[in-house]
Formats: sequence, C-alpha cells, structure tokens
Amino acid sequence: MKKLVGNLMYGQSGGPTSVINSSAYGVITEAKRQSEFIKDVYVMKHGIEGALNEDLLLIGPNNEDQVELLKYTPGSAFGSIRHKLPDYREDDSKYVRLLYIFRKYNIRYFLYNGGNDSMDTCAKIAEYMDTIDYDVRIIGIPKTIDNDLPFTDHTPGFGSAAKFISNTIMEIYYDMLAYPKGKVTIVEIMGRHAGWLTASSALANLNGFGPDLIYLPEVPFSIEKFKEDVKEIYQKKKQCLVAVSEGITNEEGVFLSSSSGLKDAFGHFQLGGVASKLAQTVSNDLGISSRSVEFGSTQRAASHIQSLTDVKEAIGVGEEAVKGLVNGRDKVMVVIRRTSDEPYEIDYGFYDLKACANVEKKVPQAMINKEGNGVTKAFIDYALPLIQGENNNPYENGLQKFAKFK
Amino acid sequence: MKKLVGNLMYGQSGGPTSVINSSAYGVITEAKRQSEFIKDVYVMKHGIEGALNEDLLLIGPNNEDQVELLKYTPGSAFGSIRHKLPDYREDDSKYVRLLYIFRKYNIRYFLYNGGNDSMDTCAKIAEYMDTIDYDVRIIGIPKTIDNDLPFTDHTPGFGSAAKFISNTIMEIYYDMLAYPKGKVTIVEIMGRHAGWLTASSALANLNGFGPDLIYLPEVPFSIEKFKEDVKEIYQKKKQCLVAVSEGITNEEGVFLSSSSGLKDAFGHFQLGGVASKLAQTVSNDLGISSRSVEFGSTQRAASHIQSLTDVKEAIGVGEEAVKGLVNGRDKVMVVIRRTSDEPYEIDYGFYDLKACANVEKKVPQAMINKEGNGVTKAFIDYALPLIQGENNNPYENGLQKFAKFK
Repeated sequence: MKKLVGNLMYGQSGGPTSVINSSAYGVITEAKRQSEFIKDVYVMKHGIEGALNEDLLLIGPNNEDQVELLKYTPGSAFGSIRHKLPDYREDDSKYVRLLYIFRKYNIRYFLYNGGNDSMDTCAKIAEYMDTIDYDVRIIGIPKTIDNDLPFTDHTPGFGSAAKFISNTIMEIYYDMLAYPKGKVTIVEIMGRHAGWLTASSALANLNGFGPDLIYLPEVPFSIEKFKEDVKEIYQKKKQCLVAVSEGITNEEGVFLSSSSGLKDAFGHFQLGGVASKLAQTVSNDLGISSRSVEFGSTQRAASHIQSLTDVKEAIGVGEEAVKGLVNGRDKVMVVIRRTSDEPYEIDYGFYDLKACANVEKKVPQAMINKEGNGVTKAFIDYALPLIQGENNNPYENGLQKFAKFK
Repeated sequence: MKKLVGNLMYGQSGGPTSVINSSAYGVITEAKRQSEFIKDVYVMKHGIEGALNEDLLLIGPNNEDQVELLKYTPGSAFGSIRHKLPDYREDDSKYVRLLYIFRKYNIRYFLYNGGNDSMDTCAKIAEYMDTIDYDVRIIGIPKTIDNDLPFTDHTPGFGSAAKFISNTIMEIYYDMLAYPKGKVTIVEIMGRHAGWLTASSALANLNGFGPDLIYLPEVPFSIEKFKEDVKEIYQKKKQCLVAVSEGITNEEGVFLSSSSGLKDAFGHFQLGGVASKLAQTVSNDLGISSRSVEFGSTQRAASHIQSLTDVKEAIGVGEEAVKGLVNGRDKVMVVIRRTSDEPYEIDYGFYDLKACANVEKKVPQAMINKEGNGVTKAFIDYALPLIQGENNNPYENGLQKFAKFK
C-alpha cells in the first residue's frame, strides 16, 4: 500500500440527523491521531457545494473549542445540501472544478457523510478521480434516520430518532388516557419508502403505552381495512393510537399524502399530511373524535433525547472511516455489523460504495405482522438495543448548548 | 381553629401537564406526614366524575410503589375530566350525590388540581357544602401549561412546557440552517387566549437559535403585516422561523385557526391548523418554500424534558395545599409568589378560590415588543428561571418509566 500524506476533506449531505455531527467529531478527532498521514482537515460548507464554491472551513485553533459540542448538536453543523452530480461522461465541468480544488488544497482523503444519494455522489467522484489518475481515497460515512442503507446492520441517526419517537409516543399515549372517552390519535412519522422509523414506535408497547396500529410503506394501505382496524380497537378500548408512515401508498403505489406536487433536487415528491387526512376520515366516516400529530423535523433533530448507543456508533463510523483511509481503504462505505444479539455487540467493516448507492433497505416481511398493521418480535429484538443509554447533553441556563462554527 | 380529622380526596381535572402528577406526589406524601389529621387518601378517577360515580382509588400498600414514579409521569395518572357543574341553586342533584360520597368516605379535606375551570368546580362545591353545613375544607391546586391563572406568579406545568418548546425550537432552527436556502418554518404552539407558551419560544434566542417572529393572541393578527414581516426576515436571512399561537385572532376577534366548529364541554372551540394555513399563505402569496410544525399534545406531555424547577414547585404546591388544609385554610387556591428575581426565589401562599375561577391571565403589554411580533427582555427575565434544571428521569431499556395505577 502506498503511503499517502495530505489533507482530508469532510462534508455532510442530505437530511440531518441528531448525531451526524457526532460522526464529524469522530472524523476530526481521529484525523488528529493520524497526523502521520493527515495534515489538515477541511470541512466543506453545505456539502459538495462547499467544495465547488471553495467555501471550506479549516479545523484549527479558531474553532477547536466547538468540536467537543458536536456530540450534542443536531442538524448539520457545517451545512448540508441535496446536490445530484451529473454523469461525468456527459458533463465533467463540476468534476474538473473539484479536481482543481483537490489539487489546490492537496486533498488526499475525502469523506462524505450521508445517505443513499450521498453514496451516489461519492461513487461518482471516485470514478472520475480514477479516470484522471488523481490519488485520493474516498469513503462514505453512513447517516440517515430512515435506516434504509443496505449492507449495514443499521445507520447512525436511526437509534436516536427511534428513541425520540418511542418515548414521545409513550407520552402521547399516556396523555390520551387522561379522559374516559379518548380520541383516535394518528401520529405521522418520517420514512418515504422504508418503515423503520414508524415501526420503532412499537418499542413504546414494551411499557404498555405504544401504538395500537402501525402502518408501514412496505404494506399497501387500504383505507377500508384501516377503518375496520380502528373501529375494532376503539370499540374495545375507547381510544386508539395509530402510527403511520408519511410514505404509505395504495395498492397502485400512489402516495396517500397530500403531495404538493413539488419535487426535491433528487426528483422525490415532498410528502406530508397523511395523518391529517386519516384523522378526517375517522371523524367523518366513523364518527369518532380524532386528532393528528406530525413529528416533522423534530424527529431528526431531537438532540435532547439522543440514544447514547447511537452517539457512540456515530462517532465510531467517523473514526473508522479515517482509519480506513490511512490503511488504504477506498471506494467503500463504513458499515456496522452486529456480532452478537445478547449482549448486543457490533464491530465496523466496509462495503463497496457503488453497491450502497441508490439502494433502499426496507423493513423485511419477517418483521411485519400478518395483518400488516403492526410489527413482530423480530423487529423489537432488532431495534431495542439501538435506543439504549442517555447522552446527558449539557444544558446551560435550561437550554442546550450547540456548536457554532464561523 | 377546629381540629378536623378525616380522609382526603384528591382529583385531577382539565388538560394534563407533564408535572401535574408531581403535585399528586406532593399531596400523597405530605398527607402521610399529616397523619394526625388525615387518615386515608382517596383519589378520584377522572376528576369529579370519579367522585360522582364512586370510582375512587385508595392509596395504600397495593399501589404505594407507583407513587415515586409520579414525579416522572406525564398526563393525568388518575384520569382527568372536563365536567362543568351546574349552579346548585338550579340543579343540586350532583351536589347531593357528592355530599353522600363525602359522608360515606368521611371526606374532610378536598383537593382539586386544575386550571381556571377546575377552580370554578372547587368554588361551587365549597359554596354548596357551606350551605348545608358539611364540614369539609377545599383547596385548589394550580396546574396548567397555559400559565393563565391569576394571582400566582406562574403555574406548575408552564416551566416544563416552556423548556420543551424552547429547546425543540432551537433544534428545529438549527436543523433549518442545514441548507443554504432555507424555508419559512411556522411552528404552532398551544394557548387559546394567553400567549405565555408561544412567548416561551423566545428563550431559544438566548443561544441564537430562536424564532425570528412571534405572534401571540394578545395582539390582533394581520395577515398583511405577517407577510411583510416574513418577507423582510427572509430577504435578509434566507430563512425564517415563526412561532405562532393557536389562538391568534383577527381585529374582530375571530380565530384564524381552522375551527372544526366543535366545542368542548366548557363551550370552547377546538383550535388548530393555524400554522398550516400561514405556511400555505407564505408559499402561495410570497412564493417562498414553507412548512408547518404543530407540537400538539407533545408540548404538555414531554416528561422527558421536564424542568426540575417546575417539578419541585409542582410537588411544592401539592404539599402546601395539604399543609393549608390541616392548618384551617379553606376556599383558597395555592399560589406561587416570586420573592426575589436574582437569585430566583419563591414561596407559597393562598388566594381566594372564587377570584381565581374563570379568570385568564394574559401576557402583559410590557412583555410584548412594539411591533407586536416578539417579546421584550421583561418576558425573558420572567420566564428563564422557570426552565432551569434537569429532572434526570429514570429510563429502563431506553424507555421512560411511568406510574401505573390499578
């Protein structure tokens, strides 16, 4: 293996999670330990656009005091972006620009922290740099609350979102019990095609305050069946809590959400409004009082209830990515491998980057109940270890402290 | 003062808070210490309806292990109710029934934990019991996230809701900063006529991640002015976070919310949907991408981010109510009095129950900025002490532990 010495470039991409900055912390602190290979760490502001615009942040004495706070800071501390690179064979202008920047800053190590789309970006850059023989190693660091990346047991970000969702569902359920005649409460949870997050609401059932019904995008949704399900539960319990994914579709694959007709940069439809529609259906067709709750961006940003397991693993994939780079790894994504169920144990590995790009891992049938309105024990066994431990985030004056760069 | 010996009846009423059960904890533990006067504690299930239906829970060896958990449990652990008692001069049937129950269980002390409407219930029962000369002392224990009870510096429940709101707003704001071109995010916060909770979002500004605009029900809302405000902020910052109360009205006092036309037992209209309407206005009229967030019942149920100050005071008002009863206090509500600003210090007192009933305390003009779209330092100084301290709620398996009775 050739010894590469140079600078490292790191960036964040796609929707934030409450622990993506923990991965940044892992990258920055591990890069320091690898000073034989890595001289400076440059962070792209707003992902790949920061590289293209030469909007870079050098981690150094000016901002080192903020690095520690990354472990407790939600969002993307360095800015994120949704930017789809074209095929370099059709239009190489952005790649030429990137090469110029890489050369100018002597970038020999490139880390991109994101989900499926970000791995696509990584793979494309790696392919281009290969063709022009510029010596740079590229690794993708997984991140997504959606938990839909393949080849990794789970993704950093999922555990903390699942912890927020399951604990908040417990609170909403307990609150709903206050009145003798309750409502039908419908909670809408993120997840475009994969139901991992919505399924995680089921963890609240371990304490007896979880959803009565769960609808995932993996199961075609029938409004008639939904009404029957709700009616049955409500007749029995005089209240009903439903967890529903924003991404549920009918038999024909059409989203139930009130699509605004707008697409994002990757051509995805913006979703939302399913819970509100279903609550109206319950009120109008079943004559039962109902209300809807949408967690919205809170579920991916709730740093105040991070899972310590998730934070540690988010730091871990960052560190592992840096170790991988200096040990000659290239064109791979860091993956988490579960090595033991009881006790829960993991180690880290790598998987071919291109294989990870643009693939969505869905909730397998074995984790969904036969009726298609709940999860099985297999899901609980899978997800429960991921919400363990509290991060005890520091508060000052009753408010969380977040990292501020620049 | 005549020495009364007998049993105590306690109940919860109105919308839950994340700390109303801490007041129950204060009542139950203090009643034990006052065993010279108080023999048994009976809890009404679902407030006054539990008394009328003889649905009572005796606190004793069967359930004492759950009492400790009350300090961490949201919702109404014993059930709540919205039940408006008639004027006993017009219809005394429920009062006669209540008297029968009081006699049967030798109830000499009666505590009702709630908001404005609950103080009305308390006052009516007290008045009736006076007319028929049944010896019972009655005290109201304040509770409401809305902070709209008069004669008390603030109400238990407000501090924890304010802590959830300010910290979650910080997270949403930080998350919004991820993209170079942000959205207009409109967050809808509870508060029918009083804007205390919506105002508390401003605490997030202390860390630089708070709302750009705040609209309270105390200020008549103009859609034209709102659009100008948003446009100005967005042009400057390329993003804008708006905190808006569910209860804002136009100049004529008409709610902007998409009222379902349904009223609750007290004749109040059900509110909601303001943020979504305003987001549509921003998208359609200003052509700026927008989204809405409704905190819904989460803001009153978020036990996982309770304010320790609030929890301690909620326990305090419960204890103080019991001490008041055995010391001869009657027909009063416990109030919190701020005795020092720096350091923040309080003590407890009592105020005439009837004066507290059906009165709503609003945010004073001195706490609202001149433009009517934000708060002043006077509000921050008032509210900041109330969110101090973390309760460190116990988790088991990554999930909160809630009290379970019966």
